Amino acid sequence: MHSIPRGFRLAGYHCGLKQDSKAEDIALIVADTPCVAAGVYTQNQIVAAPVMIDRERTPTANLRAVVINSGNANACTGSEGMENARRMLSLTAEATGCHADEVLVMSTGIIGEQLDMHKVSSGIQGAAKLLASDAKSLEAGARGILTTDTRTKITSHTIAHGAKTIRITGIAKGSGMIGPNMATLLSVILTDATLTPEVAQRELEEAVRTSFNCISVDGHTSTNDTVLLLASGPPTPLADAELDGFRLALQAACTDLARQIVNDGEGASHVMEIVVTGTPDDASARTIAKTIANSLLVKTAIAGNDPNWGRIVSAAGYAGPRLDVARTCLAINGVNLFKDGTPASFDAEEVAKSMRRQREVLIELSVGGATGSARYWSCDLTHEYVTINAEYHT
Amino acid sequence: MHSIPRGFRLAGYHCGLKQDSKAEDIALIVADTPCVAAGVYTQNQIVAAPVMIDRERTPTANLRAVVINSGNANACTGSEGMENARRMLSLTAEATGCHADEVLVMSTGIIGEQLDMHKVSSGIQGAAKLLASDAKSLEAGARGILTTDTRTKITSHTIAHGAKTIRITGIAKGSGMIGPNMATLLSVILTDATLTPEVAQRELEEAVRTSFNCISVDGHTSTNDTVLLLASGPPTPLADAELDGFRLALQAACTDLARQIVNDGEGASHVMEIVVTGTPDDASARTIAKTIANSLLVKTAIAGNDPNWGRIVSAAGYAGPRLDVARTCLAINGVNLFKDGTPASFDAEEVAKSMRRQREVLIELSVGGATGSARYWSCDLTHEYVTINAEYHT
Repeated sequence: MHSIPRGFRLAGYHCGLKQDSKAEDIALIVADTPCVAAGVYTQNQIVAAPVMIDRERTPTANLRAVVINSGNANACTGSEGMENARRMLSLTAEATGCHADEVLVMSTGIIGEQLDMHKVSSGIQGAAKLLASDAKSLEAGARGILTTDTRTKITSHTIAHGAKTIRITGIAKGSGMIGPNMATLLSVILTDATLTPEVAQRELEEAVRTSFNCISVDGHTSTNDTVLLLASGPPTPLADAELDGFRLALQAACTDLARQIVNDGEGASHVMEIVVTGTPDDASARTIAKTIANSLLVKTAIAGNDPNWGRIVSAAGYAGPRLDVARTCLAINGVNLFKDGTPASFDAEEVAKSMRRQREVLIELSVGGATGSARYWSCDLTHEYVTINAEYHT
Repeated sequence: MHSIPRGFRLAGYHCGLKQDSKAEDIALIVADTPCVAAGVYTQNQIVAAPVMIDRERTPTANLRAVVINSGNANACTGSEGMENARRMLSLTAEATGCHADEVLVMSTGIIGEQLDMHKVSSGIQGAAKLLASDAKSLEAGARGILTTDTRTKITSHTIAHGAKTIRITGIAKGSGMIGPNMATLLSVILTDATLTPEVAQRELEEAVRTSFNCISVDGHTSTNDTVLLLASGPPTPLADAELDGFRLALQAACTDLARQIVNDGEGASHVMEIVVTGTPDDASARTIAKTIANSLLVKTAIAGNDPNWGRIVSAAGYAGPRLDVARTCLAINGVNLFKDGTPASFDAEEVAKSMRRQREVLIELSVGGATGSARYWSCDLTHEYVTINAEYHT
């Protein structure tokens, strides 16, 4: 059972922003006392109004509330969009009893339409009345941020240090327009650890680098991507050993949420875990893994349960970083298909069978003898993906 | 009616290299006397044996024959693959009466399998007997290089300078694994112009930059991409004014073939022409156009006849080059959808109707006031693409 860290209350509320949906479309997160907040944002140059506001405000030690709506991204909405985002801050401040400059805002959904502020206003007021710290409120909040997602994404982790216990709980949304560049999608991670704004920011950036920034559904970086870390901890800051434990748990939380997003990727029938090793540095390995993750030919081969090593190896070949071709090896689900630059002998039907059997496909590529490595997650490309995206109209 | 430039003969022959196909799978091009040859090759680090041979040999003034097989790419085939490629050179030399070092070789098809040299040998001998300079031989040669293509790609252009006439005729193949990086796919362009090897090389590189290097079907750079220019011209070299005319015609030939490839892109129901303007330089415009061309969300929107400007503008936003967002404008099929950074008012149903009516979709994006520009071609992403690529097994 997931639970909310000390010092936070959540709520989800339905106010009618998502067409043809009775689901929650407003989520509210409130800190009982001012908390620390760090943020990582999209690197797209076309950014939504909420991102423009939030990235000016984090890191901070004076955060009291986060308001999130789904159904409308408030992106490409000009000055009216900025006014609406600011109005969400003041409505939230009024409803929760804090100042507008202690609030952050996130939006996700359709691009280019103005928010229905009448609905948003009633949504914020309705959500404020439901704020609580139980598991049901956490789930309602997690539902309130979804768009084309088919399920909520929640993770929780507990770190014990003697009698002291630190909790990390995160929620996220994301299913399409997932292509990492610094940060992707929406996610809020709550913890009752004590962190300074600077430490929170550094730890969040580090955790995002190898989790949310290592996933792709379609390679398309959204206009609204935001990951926030809120820390409500008591006055005594973490000792070094505690911070090490916190770092691992935060990494685990981010990785868990990132994988949940890929697993719920639009139309996905397989999740690929791509492990690249043997490069001079981790960044090169990540570039190769990302190129494989985004190759349409690889994604459709996986959808067809086809151990098509030629497509994977040739994608690595055009990724950019130098390959040691004579030492390049590839395995799918543990079976060697390509060894030291030439095809290995293997039972293709056996490998295809293992791909048909399981939703997760493990692709391991080694491109030389150096120590750089990366892990990346992607999903396959199916008919269902085309149906969802050719038929979801503006 | 397409015709072959003076000094060349062609042939196509069926020897059984393409599974379940009775089509020609060997093409032979012979120059009556030593001709000039220039080449542009894939930048993929995983390269096929024929590419390794050819890129050492061009530019040259002593080319007599080009042999091309389809059905097998002779890529990732190690030292046996290199031996087979060299054997193709000597078999062609024997069959056509020249030296093996005057021959170039190209292959396209399945990766990682050894060529059936018994079939290749009979194919080269059979083709040599059919060599001729008529339109039927040109078409047979053009068929001999196809794989998943549904039609031949041929272009011919004539430049007249007073009594003097220069002809340019090209053939190409390509339908999948099309993602440009320096050069893509297979193409041979013949001319009876008089060019030095250096001029031929320079003019080919220039023409490829804005034609074959500006198309994408799936963004995947192949292991075998090769474009050759063969010039059989008489001793008198081109005057400057003639060279200008030749340059324009060569550019037109390359662009025509490149567009034919996109038009025959796997599963394509629309061809997109993407024009980006207003960048500081052409390279930036090309990067933005390429990012739009490869976006799955854009490709599926076009398949759905959806004027989804949000997906196009946000793809431009993550492409990399700096946008002047407040001056960014987008039009589809001549209708403004996005103007100076905010949505324009337009009749979405009218635009959708124009997209349904025509196979070509014109996307015009302006991102500022500078003079850089680029033109790029891509196709949409349909159910048929997924079917072709999830079911085409290794």
